[in-house]
Amino acid sequence: MRQQSLLAPTMRETPADAEAVSHQLLVRGGYIRQLSAGVYSFLPLGRRVLRNAERIVREEMERTGAQEVLLPALQPADLWRKSGRYEVYGPELVRLRDRGDREFVLGPTHEEVITELVGQEIATYRKLPVTLFQIQTKFRDERRPRFGLLRCREFVMKDAYSFAANWEDLDTAYRAMYDAYHRIFERSGLAFRAVEADAGAIGGEGGTHEFMAIAESGEDDVVTCSHCDYAANMEKAAGRPAVRGNNIEAAGDNAAEAEKFHTPGLRSIEDLVTALGIRGGELIKTLIYMADGKPAAVLIRGDRTLNETKVKNALDAVELELADSETVRAVTGASTGFAGPIGLQVPLLVDEEVAVMRHGVAGANETDYHVRHVVPGRDFPLETVGDFRNVAEDEACPNCEEGKLRLIRGIEIGHVFKLGTKYSEKLGAAFVDADGESRPIIMGCYGIGVTRLLSAVIEQHHDENGMIWPAELAPFKVHVIPVSHQDEAQMAAANRLYDELREAGIDTLLDDRGERLGVKLKDADLIGIPIRIVIGKGIAEGEVEWKARGSEGAAERVALDRICASVRDWLAERRRFCLTPKG
Amino acid sequence: MRQQSLLAPTMRETPADAEAVSHQLLVRGGYIRQLSAGVYSFLPLGRRVLRNAERIVREEMERTGAQEVLLPALQPADLWRKSGRYEVYGPELVRLRDRGDREFVLGPTHEEVITELVGQEIATYRKLPVTLFQIQTKFRDERRPRFGLLRCREFVMKDAYSFAANWEDLDTAYRAMYDAYHRIFERSGLAFRAVEADAGAIGGEGGTHEFMAIAESGEDDVVTCSHCDYAANMEKAAGRPAVRGNNIEAAGDNAAEAEKFHTPGLRSIEDLVTALGIRGGELIKTLIYMADGKPAAVLIRGDRTLNETKVKNALDAVELELADSETVRAVTGASTGFAGPIGLQVPLLVDEEVAVMRHGVAGANETDYHVRHVVPGRDFPLETVGDFRNVAEDEACPNCEEGKLRLIRGIEIGHVFKLGTKYSEKLGAAFVDADGESRPIIMGCYGIGVTRLLSAVIEQHHDENGMIWPAELAPFKVHVIPVSHQDEAQMAAANRLYDELREAGIDTLLDDRGERLGVKLKDADLIGIPIRIVIGKGIAEGEVEWKARGSEGAAERVALDRICASVRDWLAERRRFCLTPKG
Repeated sequence: MRQQSLLAPTMRETPADAEAVSHQLLVRGGYIRQLSAGVYSFLPLGRRVLRNAERIVREEMERTGAQEVLLPALQPADLWRKSGRYEVYGPELVRLRDRGDREFVLGPTHEEVITELVGQEIATYRKLPVTLFQIQTKFRDERRPRFGLLRCREFVMKDAYSFAANWEDLDTAYRAMYDAYHRIFERSGLAFRAVEADAGAIGGEGGTHEFMAIAESGEDDVVTCSHCDYAANMEKAAGRPAVRGNNIEAAGDNAAEAEKFHTPGLRSIEDLVTALGIRGGELIKTLIYMADGKPAAVLIRGDRTLNETKVKNALDAVELELADSETVRAVTGASTGFAGPIGLQVPLLVDEEVAVMRHGVAGANETDYHVRHVVPGRDFPLETVGDFRNVAEDEACPNCEEGKLRLIRGIEIGHVFKLGTKYSEKLGAAFVDADGESRPIIMGCYGIGVTRLLSAVIEQHHDENGMIWPAELAPFKVHVIPVSHQDEAQMAAANRLYDELREAGIDTLLDDRGERLGVKLKDADLIGIPIRIVIGKGIAEGEVEWKARGSEGAAERVALDRICASVRDWLAERRRFCLTPKG
Repeated sequence: MRQQSLLAPTMRETPADAEAVSHQLLVRGGYIRQLSAGVYSFLPLGRRVLRNAERIVREEMERTGAQEVLLPALQPADLWRKSGRYEVYGPELVRLRDRGDREFVLGPTHEEVITELVGQEIATYRKLPVTLFQIQTKFRDERRPRFGLLRCREFVMKDAYSFAANWEDLDTAYRAMYDAYHRIFERSGLAFRAVEADAGAIGGEGGTHEFMAIAESGEDDVVTCSHCDYAANMEKAAGRPAVRGNNIEAAGDNAAEAEKFHTPGLRSIEDLVTALGIRGGELIKTLIYMADGKPAAVLIRGDRTLNETKVKNALDAVELELADSETVRAVTGASTGFAGPIGLQVPLLVDEEVAVMRHGVAGANETDYHVRHVVPGRDFPLETVGDFRNVAEDEACPNCEEGKLRLIRGIEIGHVFKLGTKYSEKLGAAFVDADGESRPIIMGCYGIGVTRLLSAVIEQHHDENGMIWPAELAPFKVHVIPVSHQDEAQMAAANRLYDELREAGIDTLLDDRGERLGVKLKDADLIGIPIRIVIGKGIAEGEVEWKARGSEGAAERVALDRICASVRDWLAERRRFCLTPKG
């Protein structure tokens, strides 16, 4: 492509509304433009990168034997009523009516459509297992679309669905996807971790992993171990109190009697820590929640944060939210900030760390009063003890003896999920097994945010001058830049090299614009094509300058007639690197 | 791909709701399934064919230098208000509101989005001309979706838009698209005609062509000449009365006086022809229309049909509809069926053929009465004479002296259109020209219904047993079928051939199912893969049977070890054929 003709409007200034680096660079580099909040147009450079990502995803899906389909965005609301999601999905689900006033949704995902389809077309175990995938546009009316392609309302997703007659075949399909995801993200040049995740609202039994691209700007917490390969997202990551296995009942021996004392206006943990001169770990925090409309209390140490997913799972609740001040008063008899475990008449969930405290300070269930010397098991019951907190940096690893937990930030780029029979039961997708019995098909679902992937890659691959595209994703592999467009020898050499590279099947961008060299190099850095060939005075000796984008040091002088072969080697090297199986 | 694993549920019976052959075969062959009226899921075979079509389209677009983009489906209603189309598009435009109650539409086409985008990003003639295209899902809430992929509510379209600083560059871009469309449809194996079309509601100046696939089942009339290369759609096709050029004023000499006579209940042309024993060509049909809310009368010969597009253009009207009976009575003083030209106080559009009648029978503007000996020019004015009728078979060609018009049926598969400045003016897409003047960008738009294209191909390429895919579109190029899946020698040879073909990069389907040969061959005919290799007893002599789908005669015996090379030659031959420039 000749740059003079390319619609790639670059910008020097950073767009005011773009917080994330990837958002800033995609806009500045002329890759995308916003049409509406969370809705983007892909300009030619953006479309090229997106197509490369689609190609990688498609190749790796097909390598697993998955078959490509294309399912509609427009889906009848009735189908979503059958699965029960029409009601529970909330305002993220885009709803509309057709000219006949029939209700439709725009698919944010395709479990309903594909489960019904496969249920209608596959009747026997002999046609199982099968895995289907699509690369398709999805719609989610995000409450707060932001960060460019990281959180959109319209985006491209690869979603795959596996159908099996038994759990072993689901495991096999799941593993095939898990491995394919590794290959996809490696080929995309990403540093990432597959982390254990919670099954969450989508439901279903069995395992689930999230794939997290490591990035400071990520919205998710990823928990890893300093020693072993344990990795989980924050919702899932298990705590391991150093004292687990101690005799909990013995913990409170010889403690003094519980004693109420006046703490006027001291509502928060910070207030108490400051006023009383104690550590947060000596406080018992009592949080009143509404779980599916019923109140419950959760106790965690004052220096910890509560993990709502764990509480939800323990209570088997669909909806969980902090109680409002009226409910708090009804449950505790006090205003918010003075709840405590003693004498509460609602279910009491006690975090393991609280259960093993010798004694602590808690709210008195009386406004402006707390209680000290509160002994777990003596002053309140330990009927439901569990892991209800978010883990913290430096906690002991739940998986090994030596490791400590580390917290890093990540961007969720993929998700693999064992659905089991949740959808097949609701939508009547059954098969007849070898014994003639009718049984629901056992499913898995597997997603990759393809447009989001591009942003994750940029978050990891950029410098202060612009993007640095990994070879397979790069919109062009080589950027040929003559120093002066008025120098005939330079332009002739540039054109010759451009033709030669294109004939070799290498996507090349030739900067044939009438711009100063400084402008051309600045744009080149911003756009981030991996190999830059500058053709200057050296052409008199048949030499040009080669520089890999993002590499340290000066450009290398290389003979013009060796460029094409060198580029081929360079790309083959990266391709080989990408496909090395992960250790 | 091994057929045992392929999700391609074939059916023997014809689906009750499928009228068009292509619809029947796509469903029976397991290519598509309906999710909702006019909304289809593409199963693996359908997706493969669609991807092949997308590849052909993309390659030919890129060959012209057009750059690929991807624009959102979700478009702010305000943008459509700016262009004025939010109001006029009607119920086909899918409208919805987001969670913030902001109005959106789902793009049925992308003039608004791309015009605004290019207007914002291109400011100078130096960045023009440019042509952008996308292959993307469109939404149109059709009043009556039908014929499978021929008339859908969600469908894949290639839309391209050209932007130029002057009309010559628009002509060049238009011509490049026109030629690319020829290549695309040739590679798709279609018999088609590029026909002159009317500019229609989308508006704009300059030329427009429709590309029509020739098919009995088509919904459009295509007018061609028996002698020259004239071709137009019915809306556009110009009539040429044999008498054009005669002295119209002289026509009515010596005719008798107009004479009213009683015709009780004779409201239609057929009634009059039967009762009076005259030919339709002797009648003057008077049709009362409402054009943008104002009445007008159009006169055509009784044996002709009215062409609303021509009338609309003559009256410069946006909306045109037949007047209701109340209006007819108000305008003519009579009930419907007795309108006539004499004494009417509304604009009178007289078709050329009527203008040259010596005399005729017309309505009397009095219920149950007609008038005979009505002489054009004498009894009613000839102020607005023009071409207001649909042309008929055997009429003289308007383009040459010898030819006669022929009417054939077609399916519209593509459309190229000179938009001019209609959208750029409304959406403020201006550029600064070489003289420093700001001017609106001159645009063209170019569409291909990619999913519809597949149906058009099947309408042309099928027999009573199933589809017959042209080489480039075929979901697989070769179908390998062992006679018995229990015969080890046959299966070993089949597997070997399958591997060999795949290694040669040839998409191959291996029927490894435990079905009887009859079932396998029936499915093969239905699915329509171009080359069928049956491996039977001949394998003992190293021979297999080769048959091209749709070819006459028996299968050919071919040496197994020559198959791969023969397939390659066969495909290369077709590819070369496809790319031969049209004469």
